Amino acid sequence: MMQPAALELGSDLASVAASVARRLRQLGDIGRDPDSGWSRIAFTGPERDAHNLFKEWATELGFGTREDAIGNSYGSRPGDGPVLMTGSHLDTVPSGGNFDGAAGVVAAVEAAALLRSEPLRHPLTVVCFSCEEGARFAAPCVGSRAITGGLDRAGLEALRDSAGVSAFAAAQAAGLRPERIDSEIWEPGSVAAYLELHIEQGRVLQEAGRRIGIVDTIAGSTRVEIGLSGRSDHSGTTPMPMRQDALVGAAEVIAGAEQVAARTRTAVATVGRLQVSPNVVTTVPGDVRFTLDVRDVDPLRQREVAEEVLRQAGRIAAKRRLGVSLRLLHDQSPFVLPFWVREQLAGAAEESGIAYRVMPSGAGHDAGYVSLVAPAGMIFVPSRDGISHSVAEWSEVEDIALGAILLARSLRRLDGAPWLAG
Amino acid sequence: MMQPAALELGSDLASVAASVARRLRQLGDIGRDPDSGWSRIAFTGPERDAHNLFKEWATELGFGTREDAIGNSYGSRPGDGPVLMTGSHLDTVPSGGNFDGAAGVVAAVEAAALLRSEPLRHPLTVVCFSCEEGARFAAPCVGSRAITGGLDRAGLEALRDSAGVSAFAAAQAAGLRPERIDSEIWEPGSVAAYLELHIEQGRVLQEAGRRIGIVDTIAGSTRVEIGLSGRSDHSGTTPMPMRQDALVGAAEVIAGAEQVAARTRTAVATVGRLQVSPNVVTTVPGDVRFTLDVRDVDPLRQREVAEEVLRQAGRIAAKRRLGVSLRLLHDQSPFVLPFWVREQLAGAAEESGIAYRVMPSGAGHDAGYVSLVAPAGMIFVPSRDGISHSVAEWSEVEDIALGAILLARSLRRLDGAPWLAG
Repeated sequence: MMQPAALELGSDLASVAASVARRLRQLGDIGRDPDSGWSRIAFTGPERDAHNLFKEWATELGFGTREDAIGNSYGSRPGDGPVLMTGSHLDTVPSGGNFDGAAGVVAAVEAAALLRSEPLRHPLTVVCFSCEEGARFAAPCVGSRAITGGLDRAGLEALRDSAGVSAFAAAQAAGLRPERIDSEIWEPGSVAAYLELHIEQGRVLQEAGRRIGIVDTIAGSTRVEIGLSGRSDHSGTTPMPMRQDALVGAAEVIAGAEQVAARTRTAVATVGRLQVSPNVVTTVPGDVRFTLDVRDVDPLRQREVAEEVLRQAGRIAAKRRLGVSLRLLHDQSPFVLPFWVREQLAGAAEESGIAYRVMPSGAGHDAGYVSLVAPAGMIFVPSRDGISHSVAEWSEVEDIALGAILLARSLRRLDGAPWLAG
Repeated sequence: MMQPAALELGSDLASVAASVARRLRQLGDIGRDPDSGWSRIAFTGPERDAHNLFKEWATELGFGTREDAIGNSYGSRPGDGPVLMTGSHLDTVPSGGNFDGAAGVVAAVEAAALLRSEPLRHPLTVVCFSCEEGARFAAPCVGSRAITGGLDRAGLEALRDSAGVSAFAAAQAAGLRPERIDSEIWEPGSVAAYLELHIEQGRVLQEAGRRIGIVDTIAGSTRVEIGLSGRSDHSGTTPMPMRQDALVGAAEVIAGAEQVAARTRTAVATVGRLQVSPNVVTTVPGDVRFTLDVRDVDPLRQREVAEEVLRQAGRIAAKRRLGVSLRLLHDQSPFVLPFWVREQLAGAAEESGIAYRVMPSGAGHDAGYVSLVAPAGMIFVPSRDGISHSVAEWSEVEDIALGAILLARSLRRLDGAPWLAG
């Protein structure tokens, strides 16, 4: 296969890295959080501003841009038939980093630029999904799930943030038209394949000394909000045996969740959000609400761990005379990405002399939901010390640039694959 | 001793109860919290409004009113020399009840009304202390401590609420003149004796079937803010053994604090306030700050329990590679109230045929700080089911009225006591 100079590895790395750095700096001006890091929260001004910056980049490439009902943004090279698609997201968790999602969008734009003068059989579309982070609505990938038919209008109305605002209302408040979601779902077969570059958000690549990961499975996630209710009492006058302290009960559940997950080889369990009521120094806590997030690449173990933690919560509550309420926030089985897409990624890496590691993803990604309607693959680049969702999140621009070149080569291979819809 | 009809027990109970109910209803219109109960937070409009209502009541009795540098309000029957003083406070915890403090102020006003036509050797003053609840500044009895010399200007500036506002700044913002505190401290010997009626906030009287408690000791309180800092990480990509989860560490400390206190006979330990950062469903908590409140009537055990919990926190943090920060918010030894004042209260109860119970107070009270500069005594009335600091807080108006009559009779006995300064 002929390889134009623009896609030769090495010759482009420095210039692509410089362009990646410039785009990340531009994004970094959007949504700086005065406390720490970046807060480009889903369906708020900073997320929308980041999408607008992406559309400027797409326009500079000569791509047409548009936005769908749920706020996913697209930049498309003209053409007919099923599209090759690549992209990621630009929202962040509160006080998050500037690489989670952003690196994938920037790499997708760079890949599109590298492929600019390549004749391709398929139209090329760069996508920027909305509301990927589960931080706001306690459920992730709202944009990609909704547009692939996994979350309808009623589903958007049922998702609530901690202030009680629904994803539907938040999207409307951001100027979007979520009421149109059910008629804008991607046509079956309209996406020939989807590739996503993302930072690893773990330490596997760093410890293995690899600059590229190719993802085989994406962990599933079961998220439950647990409420414990006891009795608010005066902290000075209520003897220990008479108390119904919701926070001590929650403490036992939290310590137990760690033990349950640690006994497995792969599952993780996290209590990330916790609210105490009335939250006063001199009052025994009457109510505590907290979230449990259990993830695993094995769907049975994922549910077993979640159920065991909830059983323990029930026993602890009974022993302490606390009321329990449970609310399922999200329950998604792991995704297995198609083997043949992974093979194309591996082939592109091998022809470029890039050492890679095949690995699972502990984090959820838009690529998982897209994989339910189109063949999807994922490229990971290393995260320094595995840190993510924090101001300390960092990936080297040279690694992102290398990933962007691999992304371009992989898209070109997929474009030429005779069995791909076109 | 001659007993005027106005102080005969029984004849007054119904009318005093009606008056108590009316005053509590008036107070109940101030600071209703839309969520639950009442929020007359120290140095805010609702607390000041409640003090103004108290001054109206004092004025109706023909008493002169004034306010001191830290916002304690006084209603005084004219006269010279050391005063007999009675009162309590009108601030509440957030979403608290309408009896804690309020019952004592209303009873004091009723006692003053009952004594209106009594010739007394001492001037009579009803006091309404400011900022008794420790909820806002994590340290209690700011008004009574400051005016008795236990908290100077620097001390007021050092106390901070959760928004970082000092007690000094909050008092100024409420229109008070805390800069004058050091020159307005009560003159030594200016208070002949102080009596305070308060709701019990526990279940001792209810379970003993007594309507009146006479307090012998007031528990001390040691309050520490504990900060644990680990690492914010992605909840999906960080294996359990690699985590530095501040919330799981805090959970172990909280569960341990309960065990340490429960092993003693009398100590209580409470974690009432807890904040998680960043408090996001999908992020391993990097920082947790929480308060520990240890109380006991034995000052050594009080400190031993607090120190043992802090030692455990240190061990847990070391094991989990967490940083620890400790901040002492408040440390007050128990108060033993003078035996001879208690004897006057008991004598007044016995002459009235009121069965009482001598008991310690688990809660702190202004009477403790006043007892450092003047003889002080306390009367408890029952709290239904011991509930306090909550909308469910309740005391029967007949019990408060009975306490008010006992308060009046006790003040008259103290007035006639030949050994009392006058």
